[in-house]
Amino acid sequence: MVDVAVVGVGQTAFGELWEKSLRNLGVEAFTAALKDAGVDRAAVQALYVGNMAAGYMSSQEHLASLFADHCGLMPKPVVRCEAACASGSLALRQAWLSIKSGAYDIVAVLGAEKMTDVTASTAVAGLMAAGDAEWEGAIGLTFAGLYALMARAHMHAFGTTREQMALVSVNNHKNAMKNPYAQFHSAITVEDVLNAAPIAEPLGLLDCSPLSDGAACVILASDKVAKRFAKPVWVLGSGQGSASLGIAARASLTEMPSTHAAVADVWKQTGLHNKDVGILEVHDCFSINEIIALEDLGFCPKGAGGKFVENGGITISGEIPTNTAGGLKGIGHPVGASGVRQIIDVARQLRGDAVNQLNDVKRGLCLNVGGVGGTAIVHALGVERK
Amino acid sequence: MVDVAVVGVGQTAFGELWEKSLRNLGVEAFTAALKDAGVDRAAVQALYVGNMAAGYMSSQEHLASLFADHCGLMPKPVVRCEAACASGSLALRQAWLSIKSGAYDIVAVLGAEKMTDVTASTAVAGLMAAGDAEWEGAIGLTFAGLYALMARAHMHAFGTTREQMALVSVNNHKNAMKNPYAQFHSAITVEDVLNAAPIAEPLGLLDCSPLSDGAACVILASDKVAKRFAKPVWVLGSGQGSASLGIAARASLTEMPSTHAAVADVWKQTGLHNKDVGILEVHDCFSINEIIALEDLGFCPKGAGGKFVENGGITISGEIPTNTAGGLKGIGHPVGASGVRQIIDVARQLRGDAVNQLNDVKRGLCLNVGGVGGTAIVHALGVERK
Repeated sequence: MVDVAVVGVGQTAFGELWEKSLRNLGVEAFTAALKDAGVDRAAVQALYVGNMAAGYMSSQEHLASLFADHCGLMPKPVVRCEAACASGSLALRQAWLSIKSGAYDIVAVLGAEKMTDVTASTAVAGLMAAGDAEWEGAIGLTFAGLYALMARAHMHAFGTTREQMALVSVNNHKNAMKNPYAQFHSAITVEDVLNAAPIAEPLGLLDCSPLSDGAACVILASDKVAKRFAKPVWVLGSGQGSASLGIAARASLTEMPSTHAAVADVWKQTGLHNKDVGILEVHDCFSINEIIALEDLGFCPKGAGGKFVENGGITISGEIPTNTAGGLKGIGHPVGASGVRQIIDVARQLRGDAVNQLNDVKRGLCLNVGGVGGTAIVHALGVERK
Repeated sequence: MVDVAVVGVGQTAFGELWEKSLRNLGVEAFTAALKDAGVDRAAVQALYVGNMAAGYMSSQEHLASLFADHCGLMPKPVVRCEAACASGSLALRQAWLSIKSGAYDIVAVLGAEKMTDVTASTAVAGLMAAGDAEWEGAIGLTFAGLYALMARAHMHAFGTTREQMALVSVNNHKNAMKNPYAQFHSAITVEDVLNAAPIAEPLGLLDCSPLSDGAACVILASDKVAKRFAKPVWVLGSGQGSASLGIAARASLTEMPSTHAAVADVWKQTGLHNKDVGILEVHDCFSINEIIALEDLGFCPKGAGGKFVENGGITISGEIPTNTAGGLKGIGHPVGASGVRQIIDVARQLRGDAVNQLNDVKRGLCLNVGGVGGTAIVHALGVERK
């Protein structure tokens, strides 16, 4: 069985990047990853692109061909993968499979999204394409609305509080303070979150990740060639699950069965478990989703996520340091890029060159969620190959 | 090395299917493929979806999750792949790689597109997302316009005539006559094509494939389990190439370097060559593209494609029977579905249950093109495993 390593990482700043187009962003991240890996683009045999919404927001599909050209990779095979906000990790997983198949030894994975070329209201409407547009979008639901329903259900079932949710955003903003790529460098308080403008109650503005432009890229290599690179970080496992696109069909609004399936597969592939993981990246598109993720991944019992956050479990010095570079809330959320950016931030922690560097961390876990969990993808990374 | 076989095929009718939604179409094709394979959906371990434009035309991304639910596959991993009109074969290729990686033994590949929920002018505008929207769409080019430029260049360089191009459409309509799934069941003449309303000169209405709804699905299996199935057709090779998204950057307008790369890889993987192939499916989105495809794939010298068609080379009794079930022009072109439909029609010829069944055909080749060749994907299929 072929093993796969992350051997280079690169990203653009995330934010409202008026001066940069989607193609600019992708090329910038790809170039940075090549430089970090110390490899020429000629060595890259294929490119996997993660993007959700360029068709809607930029009238541009066929993005992989665009990047084949502008990254100087023609006539090599290039692939666009899409699973809403999990597009980045979906691309990573397909690239991982392609290397395992023996087809390639070195593959680039590029997540990119340009969200500020349309108005915020157009973008919000477009993001409903990540949920069931026909059955739930058409009746007026937005993504904040969907997650607000899940938050209400969680509060009702488990006594989760708005303050506990607020602490998720506070932690992510705090961690982003020193991250040069982050959209926000502002500390916020629980009071700030509680007093922010309501978006879809109980979620306020500061419970919600922002609309962002940005791109992130990793270079993957097979074990055959990974030894040539200075800083390999091994992809120990990759798991993926699905659930209904809309929430009406769900048995429960307080969990994501797709995450259960994805993480179970990773534990099965790796023989690892929660206790073996020293750093965690989760998908905090809305504050409640970080709490649900902690539970669904098994870092605390179902319903105990709010308390876990309240007790400091997710902080840099906590039980499982989570989103140590700032998460989607602090760094920004260019949707197709976020899944790749999560991999970068865990890889940097494992390499030892991260923002808010932890001591002696050997393994990390990433959870990237599409929509309201229609897709969930989990990757485990490690310093050691096994 | 794991080998992969097509063990089941199914499709919907192609056409203006006002009464069916995208989800209806996908489920219908998936169900038909399961039935053809004689397998329960429980045996399907993953789903790969090819779709280009649901984000633009149906405000719906995250389609793989939609189909995971409606095809009864939750919580299994599901993937959407997109490369404009080559989305179907891109999904097939990724599924093929996933089986080769050892991750799965049985995978479904579903191509689906719903194009008639928007007006024709909206659809035509949306299809420009398959080309360089920012650099070439913004100046007014349409897809018919792009291919018209290529047709003019081909006529200028090689003396290709409008009559030769018209014969492509005549052949495709003739072949579609008995195809129960085809959008058109009308024989047309060269005069009909020449006298049709101009779309983008020299291309008239009957040089252009239609806007269509439809879905097509194949079930793939590894060699480990393929013996359980009654009618395996082997995927002997899969090649993919890229070229610039727009045409302005091309060295030549009369060929597609992506096709050269894709077919060269297939010959390398299989040790086969043109003489070993008894049936061909090519991407006749516009009549000129079938001529270019014949040349780029090596079935005739560069520039000789028009003459090859004029001499009957593509007919059922010709040198290389091409698009024997009617092609994109005759069957219709629901863009994400066409690449999968091509595989179905070659597989049926090899199994012996095709429309316009050929005698004693052992191997076939499919070329699916995205945009104006920004992506080209070639698959070789065969009755024998090697």
